[in-house]
Amino acid sequence: MSGRVPAAAIDALIRDCMQAVGLPPSDAAKVAELMVEADLVGADAHGVFRLPQYIRRIKAGGINPKPHITMEKTGPAVAMVDGDNGMGHLVMSRAAETAAELAKETGVAWVGARRSNHAGAAGVYAAMPLKQDMVGIYAVVANANHMPVWGSSENLLGTNPVAFAVPADKEPPVVLDIATTVVSYGTVKANKLQGKPMPEGWMIDKQGKPLTDSAKSGDGLLLPIGGHKGSGLALVLGLLAGTLNGAAFGRDVVDFNNDDSTACDTGHFIIALDVNRFLPVAMFKAAIDCHLRDLKSAEKLPGADAIRLPGEQRLRRRTERLRNGVPVYPEVVAQLDALAAELKVKALRERF
Amino acid sequence: MSGRVPAAAIDALIRDCMQAVGLPPSDAAKVAELMVEADLVGADAHGVFRLPQYIRRIKAGGINPKPHITMEKTGPAVAMVDGDNGMGHLVMSRAAETAAELAKETGVAWVGARRSNHAGAAGVYAAMPLKQDMVGIYAVVANANHMPVWGSSENLLGTNPVAFAVPADKEPPVVLDIATTVVSYGTVKANKLQGKPMPEGWMIDKQGKPLTDSAKSGDGLLLPIGGHKGSGLALVLGLLAGTLNGAAFGRDVVDFNNDDSTACDTGHFIIALDVNRFLPVAMFKAAIDCHLRDLKSAEKLPGADAIRLPGEQRLRRRTERLRNGVPVYPEVVAQLDALAAELKVKALRERF
Repeated sequence: MSGRVPAAAIDALIRDCMQAVGLPPSDAAKVAELMVEADLVGADAHGVFRLPQYIRRIKAGGINPKPHITMEKTGPAVAMVDGDNGMGHLVMSRAAETAAELAKETGVAWVGARRSNHAGAAGVYAAMPLKQDMVGIYAVVANANHMPVWGSSENLLGTNPVAFAVPADKEPPVVLDIATTVVSYGTVKANKLQGKPMPEGWMIDKQGKPLTDSAKSGDGLLLPIGGHKGSGLALVLGLLAGTLNGAAFGRDVVDFNNDDSTACDTGHFIIALDVNRFLPVAMFKAAIDCHLRDLKSAEKLPGADAIRLPGEQRLRRRTERLRNGVPVYPEVVAQLDALAAELKVKALRERF
Repeated sequence: MSGRVPAAAIDALIRDCMQAVGLPPSDAAKVAELMVEADLVGADAHGVFRLPQYIRRIKAGGINPKPHITMEKTGPAVAMVDGDNGMGHLVMSRAAETAAELAKETGVAWVGARRSNHAGAAGVYAAMPLKQDMVGIYAVVANANHMPVWGSSENLLGTNPVAFAVPADKEPPVVLDIATTVVSYGTVKANKLQGKPMPEGWMIDKQGKPLTDSAKSGDGLLLPIGGHKGSGLALVLGLLAGTLNGAAFGRDVVDFNNDDSTACDTGHFIIALDVNRFLPVAMFKAAIDCHLRDLKSAEKLPGADAIRLPGEQRLRRRTERLRNGVPVYPEVVAQLDALAAELKVKALRERF
C-alpha cells in the first residue's frame, strides 16, 4: 500500500535536496516542479522516485549542479541547447521554451539538446507547447541500453521513448508517451523488487528464449514493440535525439544505473508545431474533440473495461492527485527519509 | 513463381495507362517513376500492383486526372499542399520538394497535404530529402480503417504508416517504413488470396478472440504494434496527417477498396530537417556509419540469420532489381494484361 503525500510536500523536499547539493534556488524549484508534474500525471517512475539517484549522481560529479546552459539558434526554425551537463529537466524546459518561441515565428521548430541528462517523463515536455496551442513531439536517448537491435543479442539500444501532444478543446489533450519497448525497464525492475515473474513477451534471454524470471532480468533483453518495427523506431529516434546533436548513442551510452560519475551526454529533441498555420485553432480543436468522442463512444471490445485515449487518464490523475495527494510507496518513503537525513533537510513526513 | 520484368517496361506501361485515362504526359511520367521506385525498393504492395485500382478510381471519378495542385506557404517553415484530388504521388512529391526547399532556408520544415490520395510507399517520400543531406519524416492517413482504437471492436483507425530516412555515408541510409499495425492489410489480403491461414497475433475477431482464418479477415480487426502504444501512434499520426490538414480521419475516411467514386481527401505530412544546422554533414554521416557498423557487427541472436538494419535490404533490392528486373506475380501480370486490353495500350509482355 502506498500512502498519499501532498504535491507541495514533495515539491519542497525536492527543492531542499537539490539546493543541498548545490543547485541555485531557481533551478532547484524548476527541477522540483517538473518532477512533481511527472508524479501528478502518473509517470510515477519519473517523479520523486528518481530523487535519490539524481542526488547520488550530482554528489559523485556525474551531473553539474551549476550548469551554464546555452542556446544557439542555428537557423530561423532550429536551435541547439548545450546542457553543460546540468539536470535534464533544466535543459529540456529551456529547449521546449525555445521551440515554442521559434515556432511562433516560423510555424514549426526543431530544437536539439546535447550534454544533457535524464529529464524524467517524456510526456511532460511534449505537453509544454500545448499552452500556446501547439503540437509537441519529444524524444530522448535512454540512459542505459536494455534492448538489442533486431536479430542481435547485444544490448546496444535503449527504450528510447517518444511523446506526442495534440491540443483539444473540451476533451483532454491527446498526450501519448511511449517507450519503443513492450515495457519500460522500470516496470521490469518493479517486478524484480517484488519477486514477481514477468509475463512472456517482455524479455528474452541471450539464447532467444522467453525470460519470465525477473531475478534474471539483468541479463535479459527487452523486446521492442512490433519486433523489427520497434527496434527500427528506437534506432531512428536515437540517431535523431543523440547522434544528430553530437550526443551519446549506441556503444557511447553511459549506463546511469551502474555509473554515477561519468557525464551521460544525453541527447533529446523537441518539435513545436503551430496549429494556427494549418487551421484556425478553434476549428482544429473542435475537430479533435469530435474525433475523440467518436473513438470514445465506439463499440467496446467484449472484456475491455473502457476505451481509454492517450492523455485521458493523465488529466484525471492530475486532478485527483492534486486533491488527494501523490501515492508514494513505503519503500520510496524510506529511501527519501534516508536521503533527507543524509542531506540534513526536513523529512517528507514532517512536511505535511 | 513470379517472373522478372524490366523496370523500364513497367514504367512504360504505367505511363501509357495513366495517359489513357487522362493524365498529362509529365504527370503520368512522375506517377510511373514513383510507383516503379516502390517496386524497385521492395514495397511490392505499393508499386505496379496498385495500377488496376488507381485506373478504376480515375475512371469512376474518384481521382482527378488533371488536378490543379496548389501550395500555400503559411509561414517561413510550413506550407499546405492542396491536391485537388489528384494522384497522391503528384501531391506528395510536390510536398516533399517544398519541404526540402523551405528547410534549406529555415533548418526544418513541416508540409501538410490535403485533398490528396493514396501515394504508395511511405519510405519513397521520407527518402526524398536525403538527396539534400536532410532527414525526412513522412506519415499518412491510410485509405481504409482496419484497426479499432485500443479497447474497441469498431475499426475507426487505419494502419497509418510512418517513415523516417536518415542519411549515411558509405552505409545505406537508414530508411524505416512501418505500419502501426503488426502487419499491413495488404499482407492479410495476400494470405487470403493464397488460402493461407494467418498466425496468431495479426488479427482478432469482434469478440476479441484470435482470428487465424484469412477467409474471415474482412470482419477482423488488425492488431496494433505494442497494444495501446501502436493504437496511440495510429491515432496521433492520423490527427497530424489528417485532421490538422483539414483532411479525412476516423469516421470520415473513405474505404477506397469498396468505393471507387468518392474523393478520399487523404491527408499526409512530411518533415525535412537539414543535418547541416546541427552538425557538419561529413561528421554526421561518419558518426551514423560508425553506429550502423557497431549494430551490424553486434553479437547475433542464436537462430537469427542476420542483423538487418532498416534501409539495408531496400538498397540491395534496388540494385538487384534494376539489374534483373522486378518480380511480378502471374496473377498481377494477368490483371495488367486485362487492363492494357481495356485501355488499348501495349501489354506488359510486349514491352521487353
